[in-house]
Amino acid sequence: MAKSRQEYVKNFEVHSTILPSTWMVARLDGNSFTKFCETHGFVKPNDIRALSLMNEAAIYVCKQLPDIVVAYGQSDEYSFIFSKKSNVYGRRIEKILSIVISMFTSAYVYNWNRFFDIPLQHPPVFDGRIVCYPNDEIMMDYMRWRQADCHVNNLYNTIFWAIVHSGKTTTEAHEQLKGSTSAVKNERLFTEFGINYNNEPEIFRKGTALIKPLYEPTHEDVFKEEFYRNHGIIE
Amino acid sequence: MAKSRQEYVKNFEVHSTILPSTWMVARLDGNSFTKFCETHGFVKPNDIRALSLMNEAAIYVCKQLPDIVVAYGQSDEYSFIFSKKSNVYGRRIEKILSIVISMFTSAYVYNWNRFFDIPLQHPPVFDGRIVCYPNDEIMMDYMRWRQADCHVNNLYNTIFWAIVHSGKTTTEAHEQLKGSTSAVKNERLFTEFGINYNNEPEIFRKGTALIKPLYEPTHEDVFKEEFYRNHGIIE
Amino acid sequence: MAKSRQEYVKNFEVHSTILPSTWMVARLDGNSFTKFCETHGFVKPNDIRALSLMNEAAIYVCKQLPDIVVAYGQSDEYSFIFSKKSNVYGRRIEKILSIVISMFTSAYVYNWNRFFDIPLQHPPVFDGRIVCYPNDEIMMDYMRWRQADCHVNNLYNTIFWAIVHSGKTTTEAHEQLKGSTSAVKNERLFTEFGINYNNEPEIFRKGTALIKPLYEPTHEDVFKEEFYRNHGIIE
Amino acid sequence: MAKSRQEYVKNFEVHSTILPSTWMVARLDGNSFTKFCETHGFVKPNDIRALSLMNEAAIYVCKQLPDIVVAYGQSDEYSFIFSKKSNVYGRRIEKILSIVISMFTSAYVYNWNRFFDIPLQHPPVFDGRIVCYPNDEIMMDYMRWRQADCHVNNLYNTIFWAIVHSGKTTTEAHEQLKGSTSAVKNERLFTEFGINYNNEPEIFRKGTALIKPLYEPTHEDVFKEEFYRNHGIIE
Repeated sequence: MAKSRQEYVKNFEVHSTILPSTWMVARLDGNSFTKFCETHGFVKPNDIRALSLMNEAAIYVCKQLPDIVVAYGQSDEYSFIFSKKSNVYGRRIEKILSIVISMFTSAYVYNWNRFFDIPLQHPPVFDGRIVCYPNDEIMMDYMRWRQADCHVNNLYNTIFWAIVHSGKTTTEAHEQLKGSTSAVKNERLFTEFGINYNNEPEIFRKGTALIKPLYEPTHEDVFKEEFYRNHGIIE
Repeated sequence: MAKSRQEYVKNFEVHSTILPSTWMVARLDGNSFTKFCETHGFVKPNDIRALSLMNEAAIYVCKQLPDIVVAYGQSDEYSFIFSKKSNVYGRRIEKILSIVISMFTSAYVYNWNRFFDIPLQHPPVFDGRIVCYPNDEIMMDYMRWRQADCHVNNLYNTIFWAIVHSGKTTTEAHEQLKGSTSAVKNERLFTEFGINYNNEPEIFRKGTALIKPLYEPTHEDVFKEEFYRNHGIIE
Repeated sequence: MAKSRQEYVKNFEVHSTILPSTWMVARLDGNSFTKFCETHGFVKPNDIRALSLMNEAAIYVCKQLPDIVVAYGQSDEYSFIFSKKSNVYGRRIEKILSIVISMFTSAYVYNWNRFFDIPLQHPPVFDGRIVCYPNDEIMMDYMRWRQADCHVNNLYNTIFWAIVHSGKTTTEAHEQLKGSTSAVKNERLFTEFGINYNNEPEIFRKGTALIKPLYEPTHEDVFKEEFYRNHGIIE
Repeated sequence: MAKSRQEYVKNFEVHSTILPSTWMVARLDGNSFTKFCETHGFVKPNDIRALSLMNEAAIYVCKQLPDIVVAYGQSDEYSFIFSKKSNVYGRRIEKILSIVISMFTSAYVYNWNRFFDIPLQHPPVFDGRIVCYPNDEIMMDYMRWRQADCHVNNLYNTIFWAIVHSGKTTTEAHEQLKGSTSAVKNERLFTEFGINYNNEPEIFRKGTALIKPLYEPTHEDVFKEEFYRNHGIIE
């Protein structure tokens, strides 16, 4: 078809790409999820239905984009790690980001009813970014960073909600926990609330990893290099 | 909370921003929509349910992000134009793109059942990009480019499907139309199929514009500068 | 000639370009120039030889790159403004930046002996950047910003060195000037040192503008829109 | 000092940085050097004065910027490789590029008279770029690529100028060499012109590497990994 006189506006498009031979990571997070969790009555500190739905949506993304070699999720976030060798969508940042975000959101809403009885009250929203890591060591540190974050937040949230469920206000709970170490939190959980933190479900403590090619959820420790070696993520 | 040893990986994040005082445009398109349309039995050449659902999702995006001064949609694409003065999300490309895409996709799936009887068979996916235009004239040319594209494609599709519905194969229809001018297509539509193209619904011929603050669908001509002036899009 | 096995490393090159239809500005500054000025005995507060050499180098750049419509220099910095319509070097940032910097540095060293009796003691270095401005108003504000900077610094330096030349230390001079307004500085210059600031040479107070096509130095006020209109810089 | 009303234009500056933990390479090339070589009577195929001046200028750059671990030059180009760990100028692309280019150009002009009797006729210009390589293997391939380029070009130029100096036109020389292999060129050089290519000076055949910390010129083979290991460039 004939080109229009306005076709020149295409020249303003920029196609930023990710440096070749580096690990591409697409991470997404729930946007305004505090309100979304309240509206839909998410159980605190962890809602197994919500985590399972996150995993379901992430598995859908992985199966559509087989250059993803591992994905890791916790709370309302998910990271998708593409092979260093991947040339998916010419490594174009906006294309990869928008497709990952759209697939995930779409699968999340599509599968909502399989995990929740309460109907979706309004559309959930995620935001995301693309980051690239130049070598295996730094990519593994990225994974460790997210799992350390999962651990720190979950320990905090576990005792925080135990305190709140025991009758304190959230302000009081925050006040009590200010500056307390992990050891102190563990001890208090056990003596005051009878919770042995190490017996908490692994999905809460470790988050979820999805590994190529089947992408079945696992809750392994991603700190050790063996994890990556055993699953063929690094050579 | 204590910083983890892996916190340094945050330094690899890049926050690209859009040049201040320029028009930011987020455009999204259906990804693999040929298959999606077939699976869900979209009427050809235009399915009013599908277009209405696109508009519904776009209105949701506009209402969430009031820095959008005008949006324009046709077929399986939508463009959202943010005010030159907008500082939404610090004008960060990945944040804006991911949120627009996620909101749109989420609202599309969420509202599916209000427009289609057939249940959604699999999650629909959109991809997107951000482009920036330095001045009013070029922003208006962008809008004209998309509406010219709507016109050219719709005229083609209207006669193409008329030929196919009359019993020809799609290959034959393409063959017949090769190189034919708009005038010839208009004439043939009228004489062979009794279709006066100018009487076709405006939503098909012109696409849909959503204008701040109410974002009610309109099918105006976006070629004239008055359109932008009358609606307070440009000063 | 045959491609080598290593040719693939070219794929790591990125060619960032400046948004079309915007004003491109290349600004360079003397790098470690405090030491360079001392080593070569630059007269304080202003060395007319040094400023003339800066202008000579800048004129050379302008004549080589006729898409430069105006350049502005003061102290050890120079800004080159390329036409909005320029497609020089495909608007590639690194190409334009490196060529402007190299031309300027080369012409500066090449012409040194025409302005200074003292031989060059070591190679002078400049650093630079490319900035783009989306419309005429902001480009003019950029020019005004640099000329305002020239004025503020020159008024300060004029009285600062008058104090120092009268026998005070530089620390004492800084101390005396802390927080003083322009009015106070003007008054003190006149009453204590007999200097009517407005009679100081224009090249010191206003800096230098070079205007296409002859690029002859002028010391006009760049605050007024007439400056740009009269010289055909804007339409 | 008081901020001016125009200070906001600073917000249009963008500070692109090179991904951390990657090899940064700044490469510069003579711009319009065919003409520059002719004007200054450069000897063909290789002018030892010109190559020595290139090396002198490159050594100056290396000594100013000790994060450069190795530099490689041939013909009118030079590459500077910064340590993966370098944080020079916050890894800002424009800052690093402009300073390397300016230093090199400045030292080239400054030292001209030490290598050439003919005075400089006009300022020489170089252009440049920054590329980043994510790991040691690719950085080494970059070096190999430049040295392979040196070899291929030098073999060609050696026989090309031998033919020209024997009385043919440049067109005839090009014609004769079209499609000839390296083996054929080597053979012809020996039988027709009595030149054993392997006895040509190493600086012509291999180019020049400058290695931290002394940056003394060497003409080693940069193909072997030992080169990098022995000189502490990689671990």
